[in-house]
Amino acid sequence: MTSRENQEAIAGLTTSRIQALSDGVFAIVFTLMVFQIRLPDLSASRPPAELARHLRALWPEFLSYALSFIIAGVFWVGHHNIFHYVRRTDRLFLWLNLGFLMFIAFVPFSTALLGRYSQEQVAVVVYGVHLIIIGMLLYLVWSYATRRHRLVDPQIDPDFVHFVKGRILLSPAACVVAIGASFVNVRWSLLLYLLVLAFYIVPGRIDRLWSRR
Amino acid sequence: MTSRENQEAIAGLTTSRIQALSDGVFAIVFTLMVFQIRLPDLSASRPPAELARHLRALWPEFLSYALSFIIAGVFWVGHHNIFHYVRRTDRLFLWLNLGFLMFIAFVPFSTALLGRYSQEQVAVVVYGVHLIIIGMLLYLVWSYATRRHRLVDPQIDPDFVHFVKGRILLSPAACVVAIGASFVNVRWSLLLYLLVLAFYIVPGRIDRLWSRR
Amino acid sequence: MTSRENQEAIAGLTTSRIQALSDGVFAIVFTLMVFQIRLPDLSASRPPAELARHLRALWPEFLSYALSFIIAGVFWVGHHNIFHYVRRTDRLFLWLNLGFLMFIAFVPFSTALLGRYSQEQVAVVVYGVHLIIIGMLLYLVWSYATRRHRLVDPQIDPDFVHFVKGRILLSPAACVVAIGASFVNVRWSLLLYLLVLAFYIVPGRIDRLWSRR
Amino acid sequence: MTSRENQEAIAGLTTSRIQALSDGVFAIVFTLMVFQIRLPDLSASRPPAELARHLRALWPEFLSYALSFIIAGVFWVGHHNIFHYVRRTDRLFLWLNLGFLMFIAFVPFSTALLGRYSQEQVAVVVYGVHLIIIGMLLYLVWSYATRRHRLVDPQIDPDFVHFVKGRILLSPAACVVAIGASFVNVRWSLLLYLLVLAFYIVPGRIDRLWSRR
Repeated sequence: MTSRENQEAIAGLTTSRIQALSDGVFAIVFTLMVFQIRLPDLSASRPPAELARHLRALWPEFLSYALSFIIAGVFWVGHHNIFHYVRRTDRLFLWLNLGFLMFIAFVPFSTALLGRYSQEQVAVVVYGVHLIIIGMLLYLVWSYATRRHRLVDPQIDPDFVHFVKGRILLSPAACVVAIGASFVNVRWSLLLYLLVLAFYIVPGRIDRLWSRR
Repeated sequence: MTSRENQEAIAGLTTSRIQALSDGVFAIVFTLMVFQIRLPDLSASRPPAELARHLRALWPEFLSYALSFIIAGVFWVGHHNIFHYVRRTDRLFLWLNLGFLMFIAFVPFSTALLGRYSQEQVAVVVYGVHLIIIGMLLYLVWSYATRRHRLVDPQIDPDFVHFVKGRILLSPAACVVAIGASFVNVRWSLLLYLLVLAFYIVPGRIDRLWSRR
Repeated sequence: MTSRENQEAIAGLTTSRIQALSDGVFAIVFTLMVFQIRLPDLSASRPPAELARHLRALWPEFLSYALSFIIAGVFWVGHHNIFHYVRRTDRLFLWLNLGFLMFIAFVPFSTALLGRYSQEQVAVVVYGVHLIIIGMLLYLVWSYATRRHRLVDPQIDPDFVHFVKGRILLSPAACVVAIGASFVNVRWSLLLYLLVLAFYIVPGRIDRLWSRR
Repeated sequence: MTSRENQEAIAGLTTSRIQALSDGVFAIVFTLMVFQIRLPDLSASRPPAELARHLRALWPEFLSYALSFIIAGVFWVGHHNIFHYVRRTDRLFLWLNLGFLMFIAFVPFSTALLGRYSQEQVAVVVYGVHLIIIGMLLYLVWSYATRRHRLVDPQIDPDFVHFVKGRILLSPAACVVAIGASFVNVRWSLLLYLLVLAFYIVPGRIDRLWSRR
């Protein structure tokens, strides 16, 4: 095996498996919540309108599912974008990524908590701390990979590396503000959480950089 | 990295991950429903014929499973065919696909609803609306990718793009008719739903185009 | 894109997704059964020996899990071997494979049924019929793919195609005999099921053919 | 098909599917445990502090989840490293790997058992035996693949093969000691289990060998 082939084998095989594992974890997070929404179980002898009423009563669960889906989606897209630039891996990087996945698996839990107890500061704070942890782990994944081009292409643009860092850190920063706001009024915190989601979904400067490549 | 290699990296990595995520979601949808069918739990001191009777009583659950499987299968095959032509991706495309997956994850729910309450208009309408949403999202995925060859090969045949659009839209169109029919007689709606499934499974002109390539 | 590259793209992309979906379904079948084995929930004030006793009482569930795992494993290895030779795909082939996966997802159900009611003919027959269906679907997958080299390499050895067919059909044939035997004594049926498993696990002539390539 | 292409097809296809299956199993093990942590279900008319109290009461479940995650993570990283060198496969190798996965799927069970009954020798012994089985299966996977270069590159360094063997065997060896220690004091066993985890996570000589390649 030539040195070139060898390196390709290392780069290809290794990041492909982290990505496969990550996509598996995300796919389960995306799908499994639905299976916890129970079908209404009604007797045959009630008025037909009752079924419609029972389905409407499931509304908060549908909403909580949609929200979890979008939050997990934001991080899946972010993870996807980061791994687009990663060429190699090492033990610490595998573990940083596993830590990230460990907290991603908790997204349905803390989103459901927020959905069920949105008026209470405890739920708002738990949710914010959770998002801060996920954001910081994603930041660690990216900065560990890019530091002195450890696991990325040597030609990667340093400005781009910096720009992505700022973009990732925005979510934890907003969550710190939202946690602070929760001591005044939890509604302001909820509004901030929604703004963060919108920021990551709407295409921005990073996508123009992306499509220019 | 040459420009050619760069482009390959983008095309390869990126669509491979959307596909991996999608296949993961579909695999869970395909499999998890079975785990909700409970084994009959009978005491040792009853007549042997009772086990057979209990298994026969599970019949509606088996049927609902088979139906969900076929519906999810139709959309998996459709998704598969579409992604055969997609070469690149961007943020909006990732989100359109995530939206599609979000509603695919609900297929077992609304199919079970239809199986359990097939005589009631509410269930028939919910099921139809669900299929319309999935169909429209798949349509958006395809038309976003193909518009001005945004994410597909420039040499793709415009007639083929058009033909696939019509094929995708047939399901939502039939569901609109089925919802209308439900105001007269829900049996007509059910018949229409079955016809739509049959249409997508039986090989047609698209498969001849396919095998000619 | 040259014609050669184009064909590679079709072959690569397409069978890779069936395989990804199949591996996802198998992974869930392999793993999910464990989550249905409940941890014993004992109070702190009982004698320590009681925990050991409760764990021993879980023995039939562990055995049923191991059996399901091995049966699903046999079919995963078979599916793996078959897809090693498949180069292309078409709509009917996708559906044959989906049908196969649909019944694979039921392996934990009918194995648990057999484990729980191994003395009753109904369970023995249901299990046998289930294995016959899976075997016939795998046979259809292989014969559809190889007929006039439809989806396989033109250079494939016809003797090999034939040999694999016989190997696949052995399981359904043995199950027919086992179902017949159940009318006399269900123990003979159980013995036959175990022999079939052993036959597929022990390396045989096919593996010598395999390693010679 | 030239001989070179043929070999690539065998190497690529085959180990890619074992890896896909393994990653699927690991992804489910990593994620599914979270879904068993129930959200506290409290009435609206209780003091707000009660929610915080209920969340704190979930602490042992979070800890057990984190521990399962780390243990499964250690074996995923190990499996990942081993498969980096595997080029081919055969029937027995597939089954060794399936056996390994079968016991990986049990990690959440025996970790939860240890978390719930950490003061009792039965739980400590079951956990240790489980880790010994997993370690021995991983050892078999590696030594079967490397014996006379059966499934690996012929140029692989024999010292490296040996070194990895020792590294894998350390966990079962420590578990044997831990089981012995449990007859004196179960706390010593727990301490040993933690040391083993730390040993595998902290980068060591193997990672220097790795990065030198």
